[in-house]
Amino acid sequence: MTPSPIRFGLIGTGRIGQVHAVNIAASPDTTLSWVADPFIAGATGVTERFGGRATESADELLASGEVDAVIIASPTPTHVDLIAAALDRGIPVLCEKPIDLDLARVDALRPLVAASGVPVGLGFNRRFDPAFAEVHARVGAGEVGELEQLTIISRDPAAPPASYIAVSGGIFRDMTIHDFDMARFFVSDIVEVSATATTTFDDGAREHGDVDTAVTVLRAASGAIVTIINSRHSASGYDQRLEAFGARGSLQVANAGTSLVSASTATSVEARPPYQDFFLERYAASYAAELAEFVKSVRGEASTSPTFEDGRAALVLADAAQRSLVERAAVAVSFD
Amino acid sequence: MTPSPIRFGLIGTGRIGQVHAVNIAASPDTTLSWVADPFIAGATGVTERFGGRATESADELLASGEVDAVIIASPTPTHVDLIAAALDRGIPVLCEKPIDLDLARVDALRPLVAASGVPVGLGFNRRFDPAFAEVHARVGAGEVGELEQLTIISRDPAAPPASYIAVSGGIFRDMTIHDFDMARFFVSDIVEVSATATTTFDDGAREHGDVDTAVTVLRAASGAIVTIINSRHSASGYDQRLEAFGARGSLQVANAGTSLVSASTATSVEARPPYQDFFLERYAASYAAELAEFVKSVRGEASTSPTFEDGRAALVLADAAQRSLVERAAVAVSFD
Amino acid sequence: MTPSPIRFGLIGTGRIGQVHAVNIAASPDTTLSWVADPFIAGATGVTERFGGRATESADELLASGEVDAVIIASPTPTHVDLIAAALDRGIPVLCEKPIDLDLARVDALRPLVAASGVPVGLGFNRRFDPAFAEVHARVGAGEVGELEQLTIISRDPAAPPASYIAVSGGIFRDMTIHDFDMARFFVSDIVEVSATATTTFDDGAREHGDVDTAVTVLRAASGAIVTIINSRHSASGYDQRLEAFGARGSLQVANAGTSLVSASTATSVEARPPYQDFFLERYAASYAAELAEFVKSVRGEASTSPTFEDGRAALVLADAAQRSLVERAAVAVSFD
Amino acid sequence: MTPSPIRFGLIGTGRIGQVHAVNIAASPDTTLSWVADPFIAGATGVTERFGGRATESADELLASGEVDAVIIASPTPTHVDLIAAALDRGIPVLCEKPIDLDLARVDALRPLVAASGVPVGLGFNRRFDPAFAEVHARVGAGEVGELEQLTIISRDPAAPPASYIAVSGGIFRDMTIHDFDMARFFVSDIVEVSATATTTFDDGAREHGDVDTAVTVLRAASGAIVTIINSRHSASGYDQRLEAFGARGSLQVANAGTSLVSASTATSVEARPPYQDFFLERYAASYAAELAEFVKSVRGEASTSPTFEDGRAALVLADAAQRSLVERAAVAVSFD
Repeated sequence: MTPSPIRFGLIGTGRIGQVHAVNIAASPDTTLSWVADPFIAGATGVTERFGGRATESADELLASGEVDAVIIASPTPTHVDLIAAALDRGIPVLCEKPIDLDLARVDALRPLVAASGVPVGLGFNRRFDPAFAEVHARVGAGEVGELEQLTIISRDPAAPPASYIAVSGGIFRDMTIHDFDMARFFVSDIVEVSATATTTFDDGAREHGDVDTAVTVLRAASGAIVTIINSRHSASGYDQRLEAFGARGSLQVANAGTSLVSASTATSVEARPPYQDFFLERYAASYAAELAEFVKSVRGEASTSPTFEDGRAALVLADAAQRSLVERAAVAVSFD
Repeated sequence: MTPSPIRFGLIGTGRIGQVHAVNIAASPDTTLSWVADPFIAGATGVTERFGGRATESADELLASGEVDAVIIASPTPTHVDLIAAALDRGIPVLCEKPIDLDLARVDALRPLVAASGVPVGLGFNRRFDPAFAEVHARVGAGEVGELEQLTIISRDPAAPPASYIAVSGGIFRDMTIHDFDMARFFVSDIVEVSATATTTFDDGAREHGDVDTAVTVLRAASGAIVTIINSRHSASGYDQRLEAFGARGSLQVANAGTSLVSASTATSVEARPPYQDFFLERYAASYAAELAEFVKSVRGEASTSPTFEDGRAALVLADAAQRSLVERAAVAVSFD
Repeated sequence: MTPSPIRFGLIGTGRIGQVHAVNIAASPDTTLSWVADPFIAGATGVTERFGGRATESADELLASGEVDAVIIASPTPTHVDLIAAALDRGIPVLCEKPIDLDLARVDALRPLVAASGVPVGLGFNRRFDPAFAEVHARVGAGEVGELEQLTIISRDPAAPPASYIAVSGGIFRDMTIHDFDMARFFVSDIVEVSATATTTFDDGAREHGDVDTAVTVLRAASGAIVTIINSRHSASGYDQRLEAFGARGSLQVANAGTSLVSASTATSVEARPPYQDFFLERYAASYAAELAEFVKSVRGEASTSPTFEDGRAALVLADAAQRSLVERAAVAVSFD
Repeated sequence: MTPSPIRFGLIGTGRIGQVHAVNIAASPDTTLSWVADPFIAGATGVTERFGGRATESADELLASGEVDAVIIASPTPTHVDLIAAALDRGIPVLCEKPIDLDLARVDALRPLVAASGVPVGLGFNRRFDPAFAEVHARVGAGEVGELEQLTIISRDPAAPPASYIAVSGGIFRDMTIHDFDMARFFVSDIVEVSATATTTFDDGAREHGDVDTAVTVLRAASGAIVTIINSRHSASGYDQRLEAFGARGSLQVANAGTSLVSASTATSVEARPPYQDFFLERYAASYAAELAEFVKSVRGEASTSPTFEDGRAALVLADAAQRSLVERAAVAVSFD
């Protein structure tokens, strides 16, 4: 017998919340039951398209008795309290990253999560990108030998508005955090973080004490070294590359083009249209796969969903990078 | 005011019929109203997923008064009669290619189509492939100068069963017909066809007097030359390439990969996973765009949908290629 | 003991003659002994740089008793008589293509060549290009299975002057002849030729009854089909590609770039500088390898040098293509 | 009037010494006059092929009065004394990198070099690689805007023998030193160095306290960040890539292939043969261009040859990287 669809509550209806709503509606395994947003027009906009009941109140959603799992896609400062509220009711949670900008608040929540016995997934959707997942599987199968170097190039198409930077927690907690999780996806025993960063072009970053250009180097106990190269802008589109290198060779993820066409003229050959614009296009498939994997964990099946601990570990790395940046020294890390 | 969705009747529920059903259901501009298939389980399988009423009888579908347009995705020998039946009732038709294997039957239908005053679209969906459409637009904008050479490489992943070849009308009418339409999409004034073909590997083709390997050269009054290179098989996946060449340069369409990953080892570098398997994957976007364009023509808006005349012209080219193959000579063609 | 260097006579000091002079001087196996050119300044220009004695008279060169082998790089109409004169003296010959524009003259020479017992090599240097030679070897080793399709794209960077076209014998004898030899390098049992050609841009070609755009299709007894796509111009540089296709896959030769650099901007990504300009750059390595191979044949060692018969066979194909072009029919060929 | 060729003395006849000998002999601007090597058979081996007189004694070479310039390609510990000896006689020097492993010895030589008034060039030949030079010129012309990130991937094909590592001065002074110079070629105002390195596979490195895997991050006063990714091995061949990134886009240098051929089969597509093996192949053109540029400086013409100060600066960076590695902190650098 086919199991009943998981009834989802969705909290937050911004860009990413809407992506989740589409995927919940599209999957035969899930259904959208309740949608909460204090900006009620956002919530009703979603329920009109994809079904479910709209409310301004996340509490009403959680108390409805009609949600088997909840996706938290509201602003970061609300995450910790919402996770706690869901766990109080025994409702599994898929929370967008980061859990919080403040590791102390995350640590305060940690015992509750550990004791809850229900899945708390973190929205590191890139693990489910078909290309990164393929490289991960092939590295795991030994295709390159022991992993010695992982190089991640991750550049956003354009810097966010200064108002966003003001509350983002800085480049490491806001942008690199995805790359920190990718690093841990491949290399589990990271012991040290060294960061170098500057502000080269973005006045918004300068105004709020943030940086726009960063290189972070992670060292693992095994000897593997991870290099993360970030920029807040990229003229040719969203720049998301990765190379996994070992004794037997390397596996590389190229950027995602927008077309199969190339042009050759008197001045250049094999020129292709720019890369995909940003994460909603580049990682569209990842969000759907992330949901499918989280559903498995809700159902009690074996699942590779990133967990609350993965979310905390990425924040530990972000904090260490920030400290390294200030202290101009390598910073030892532990995920205990 | 948003216009009401077009109510579609779907005749035929094989692989391509099902693709159309998915796209009709997914678009806010269209709805699936009736589905006909003598194999009634095929029809009900579709209506259970996508709505509408199922019937064994195409006549019942056409007579229902509940279809604003019909898609004919039934076996080729039924196309002519079904088009005629739809036009008798003034119902616009989107018919899968080919119209028929026999040009005489197509010509017999021609006056009825011309007199009907309703759109009759032909399912040459590759015109709507984003890559081919992009090259077409850029050539039209003069990017390569006057088009001098169009080269199409079109190889299926594997030969069809002998039973299919027995009734397919041969490689030119069954497989190259898509390439003939692509040729005409770029070069409208074709005047001559020369074909060379052999049977190199496929016993099914040999048994039924067909070929598995073919090169067809089309000459245009303008001087442009189109070369179509076909094979019934391709070890590395569906091989669909095109080059538009002129005085100022060239535009090329590459094959569609299945992954962004490449591998480098001691024996080879930059090796990528095989290409997409076949047309349902490669041209998934094309079918949806084809439907959207046909809806425009049903609504009386300007549309670039391929027409009955396009379907007939491709068949004229296929017949000429077959004659050229037998006569070992170039064959003059006219589309009048 | 190292054998003495082969003493070469060079007849003709145009562009290709000079390439040969450089290679003869650079190799420890060869030395430049005599250089003949009626334009004596051409001959002395070469001997001043690379040694040897200069003369206006090819006869003096051949009669000198100081040449072990001769390279004929003079104008085409002189080839037949010079080959005959060299063979009369028992001197091995490496002759630039084509042997002659008139097959009757070639056939008249044929018995003398057959009876001479000395090597007569033909300058189809592309056989020695590292990339084409690699594909030939890998196809021979069965990497793609039986060869089913060979596709050659061969476009010169710019049309030659009208004065050259006036005496070139037409595109098939002058330009495609290299591609015909490449076709025979891979496919030995060609039985039929079909040509389609037009004049799309070159007034010089039009003036002299030649074409500038051509597609030639060759059919082999085995079923293999060779397609040769030619143009007299190519905006992005010398366009020299090849694909060998069989049941197990394909091998492709890409164009030779001029740089390892690619650029990505807001309007295009991965754009590379144009291709190499023309044959002197693209086939520089081929000329040296051709000489080395010819030296082997002069020394009586096993050699794969193209022969007089290869030169004649290419001309047979060129004549057949020309006849096919006029008759608008496929033309059967035999190399007996 | 053509100037007389520069008469070169060559000290050291190992692999790189021989490369210089070939280039000196091949250029019309240079001639090989004397060759010195304590291993006299090495010296005579060179003079027999390329001319000049052989000696065991570098002093005899310098005192001969027959050398206009000297190339020092002897073991590193001899460099400082040989430079001093040449400058004592007013002879221009092109010295292989590094000047010395000990910055104190370099600094002791520094006043003599500054006072000498004759060119002292350093053998950072990669500056003359056509691809790197092209990117440098295009960045200089503003094609990517202000340079924000320079990423260098530099991996040798295989680790050197343990005996070499024992005296090499470690990965930064021996291998990364080329990348440090490349960094300074693009970014002149480097102020800080952070290094992370491990030993992952090479027992020779482990035995001698060296590392085999390293990532070095350089920060410039301008805000530009340079990332250098090194490994002592690379299964797919010599890995030499670079990306120059700025607000307007990026320029990338790809690896140098050994063939234009790619293969497509049922298991992978577009697979190419491995990259060039090592620096003698990859940088063959660079050595010749380096010599040509040094000749300019000897002639008193404007030249971009790297200087003694460039050699010293690279060593400053190597020392800083080594210190950063030990101290686990960023190290400030100055080139004063």
